Amino acid sequence: MTTDYDVIIIGGGAVAENVADRAVQGGLTAVLIESELVGGECSYWACMPSKALLRSGAVLRAAKAVDGAKQAVTGDLDVAAVLARRTSFTHDWDDTSQVEWVASAGIDLLRGFGRLTGVRQVAVTTPDGSVIALTARHAVVVSTGSDPVLPDVNGLAGVAPWTPREATSATAIPDSLAIIGGGVVAVELATAYAGFGCAVTIIARSGLLSGQEDFASAMVTESLEKLGVTLRLNTTPVFAARDGKVSLDLSDGTTVVADEVLVATGRQPRTTDIGLDSVGIAPGEWLSVDDTMLVEGTDWLYATGDVNHRALLTHQGKYQARIAGDVIAARAAGSAVNDEPWGSHVATADHAAVPQVTFSDPEVASIGLTSEAARRAGNRIRVVDYDMSWVAGASLHADGYEGRARMVVDEDRSVILGVTFVGPDVSELIHAATIAVVGEVPLARLWHAVPAYPTVNEIWLRLLETYRSEA
Amino acid sequence: MTTDYDVIIIGGGAVAENVADRAVQGGLTAVLIESELVGGECSYWACMPSKALLRSGAVLRAAKAVDGAKQAVTGDLDVAAVLARRTSFTHDWDDTSQVEWVASAGIDLLRGFGRLTGVRQVAVTTPDGSVIALTARHAVVVSTGSDPVLPDVNGLAGVAPWTPREATSATAIPDSLAIIGGGVVAVELATAYAGFGCAVTIIARSGLLSGQEDFASAMVTESLEKLGVTLRLNTTPVFAARDGKVSLDLSDGTTVVADEVLVATGRQPRTTDIGLDSVGIAPGEWLSVDDTMLVEGTDWLYATGDVNHRALLTHQGKYQARIAGDVIAARAAGSAVNDEPWGSHVATADHAAVPQVTFSDPEVASIGLTSEAARRAGNRIRVVDYDMSWVAGASLHADGYEGRARMVVDEDRSVILGVTFVGPDVSELIHAATIAVVGEVPLARLWHAVPAYPTVNEIWLRLLETYRSEA
Repeated sequence: MTTDYDVIIIGGGAVAENVADRAVQGGLTAVLIESELVGGECSYWACMPSKALLRSGAVLRAAKAVDGAKQAVTGDLDVAAVLARRTSFTHDWDDTSQVEWVASAGIDLLRGFGRLTGVRQVAVTTPDGSVIALTARHAVVVSTGSDPVLPDVNGLAGVAPWTPREATSATAIPDSLAIIGGGVVAVELATAYAGFGCAVTIIARSGLLSGQEDFASAMVTESLEKLGVTLRLNTTPVFAARDGKVSLDLSDGTTVVADEVLVATGRQPRTTDIGLDSVGIAPGEWLSVDDTMLVEGTDWLYATGDVNHRALLTHQGKYQARIAGDVIAARAAGSAVNDEPWGSHVATADHAAVPQVTFSDPEVASIGLTSEAARRAGNRIRVVDYDMSWVAGASLHADGYEGRARMVVDEDRSVILGVTFVGPDVSELIHAATIAVVGEVPLARLWHAVPAYPTVNEIWLRLLETYRSEA
Repeated sequence: MTTDYDVIIIGGGAVAENVADRAVQGGLTAVLIESELVGGECSYWACMPSKALLRSGAVLRAAKAVDGAKQAVTGDLDVAAVLARRTSFTHDWDDTSQVEWVASAGIDLLRGFGRLTGVRQVAVTTPDGSVIALTARHAVVVSTGSDPVLPDVNGLAGVAPWTPREATSATAIPDSLAIIGGGVVAVELATAYAGFGCAVTIIARSGLLSGQEDFASAMVTESLEKLGVTLRLNTTPVFAARDGKVSLDLSDGTTVVADEVLVATGRQPRTTDIGLDSVGIAPGEWLSVDDTMLVEGTDWLYATGDVNHRALLTHQGKYQARIAGDVIAARAAGSAVNDEPWGSHVATADHAAVPQVTFSDPEVASIGLTSEAARRAGNRIRVVDYDMSWVAGASLHADGYEGRARMVVDEDRSVILGVTFVGPDVSELIHAATIAVVGEVPLARLWHAVPAYPTVNEIWLRLLETYRSEA
């Protein structure tokens, strides 16, 4: 058995797979070390199952929002069918197809738990308890992802709280669910479970979707209430107990009772037990990397995906992974490294061009800087807002369409720094903004990018017109 | 009453309105001359009503394509409700709201039929038969649009054929409809009417959607057949007669019988009776213009929209209109004209960045050059194809998703010349490609435009990966 590789990747999720794939494409040998399912969090307990739980309800609401179609929707969402569809996307939590892909891509796979034991040295504890020592000729990549944070609430650990894993893999829907947290995961799962007829209560320390533009938070807050979700904002649980149902005492003196409680209050790095101390790095911390994903202070250790804390999103982790795999191959070959901003070996987009979608109802899709973040970063900006319901294509898309768009313009460079869309199905609108931001396409040129009529994308014309008229 | 204007616009459709608006914003006086409804073809008899006729069926098909949702769709499309919704978008063919907008924008409106009588001279025959002579200080703009072409078929005029106007404004759906033509209008109306339970037959001289990529035509052809549309391709009607129903004898020796026949075989310019001969221009022809929309050989006559034959699409006409209004104002003021390519006073996008959407099932959305057009224009290209059903976001979007994408790359400049998407709801995906093409964003930079996971837009990553792997 081979124990020497060009690249050893601790982790076997989507991000790890992409690092390995690019390294192998670059002529290197690579091995993935995975202790759970190959394909990782996103494939089995995050993006894929959660989007699957949401899609059926979303498309049904879309049909109910258009006269002529809504009359045909006389039944209810078939929750059992939704759960079965979700399970088809997770392959019933079986990773055979991913394992086959890994093999077909020329990547080795070692099942077990990987730990660093020194510079370019990794020990793998396999399921049978044996330990295999591996050596990396060029690089070790940490791609272990993140774990949910369990907030420090008296009694919480004892009530067997759900994490997003249990919520995305549930095979039965409880009658009631309390969700602790107000971020993307909390909002998406509240939307899904409310759609299944579950009585959902969100308990959040502040508001919902902080970090997004204020109007996004406001619109989602309002719509969750319309979907029947109970919102307990600006409060926190202080005590939890289970007696059949879970009871949560809140800091505002009230109590929430539910069949299950889901904790969605953030993530922590999976770096506590991967041997970082053996190479002089403090365990349990996020791993700081440069734009080529090299861990600070090393010339052989890389970190990609959640664990580097640059952007906890699958797509951004995969982007980092492609770059890391390529730059490892380039450095191994002694070829030129293109690390100028936007070069092929740096993850420049992590800084100011990260797209994020919340598949709530309405959806929230954003890219780049919010108005607040842009101001804080010292840019001279102009904020352009538009009510998307005034777009002809939007009024055709859904009766009573409600949506809003914001464009943040860098007045010095006449380029877009950020865009946020909130509305039905805006998740597919944001990539146009991503290309505009990443391409640094000047506003004067964007006037020539004509949106097809009558699509919702005519919002682009309206944003430009509004920008011009307010000049 | 004022008879002297800075700008006289013959026509009052969406394109004319935009010319006037920009001219007025530029400090000029402007008048629209409209003999029918203010707002024009698009508002009352084309884009808006046709999209309205299609949307309810499209969203219902979308719901039926997702397990868990489909079980709730137990009824049928409510055709009466669809027609009523359509009528709400056409304001029951009443232009009051458009007239109010025109007034609020500071634009004058003269109802009547406008004809040139000399250089910067226009005579308007009003509904009461009187004639008003107008003089333009700076420019006359022809924005009269186009009329359907009635093919030269023996007996056709005598069977009272429908044009797109009758099909988009119908208040009852015939049991059967024969459509002559295979372009966008024919395909869209066939999709809508088939969805209403009408037995539709398409009679086309060649295939469907010629001018689009071949696979777009093939996929739409196949899906129309699945929707129950009878296709009679590569044949033409040679004789028409009505005896209750219309009977059409075809060149292949067969006969099609239907309650109504819709002619959708192309457009001709509305220039036969607008006084062009008074200024030395042959009537009945399309008006050739330069990139500032100035009619060749004149320094005062402009033509915008369909009538200049650059791109017979509302959005492109409105784009031309904005540019024409601005350049007329600039020239009137003696200010600088920015007519370098992609400048603010030239419609550069008309040449190579025209988006087009066919709201069929699947939708077809394209921008820029097809592979064939790019080759014909002498570009050294690479064609990159991808099966969109392999995109994770697509499989979540609809069960059995079928779609295909093509990217045409200019190998010399490493930029995209054209993109075509075919699939459910791709109409909203194309604007990202429009920005990439218009912005001339290099492929190396596009790698940094990360699509949000799991959206259908991940097709962008797949296209780039395919391009790289085939290098």
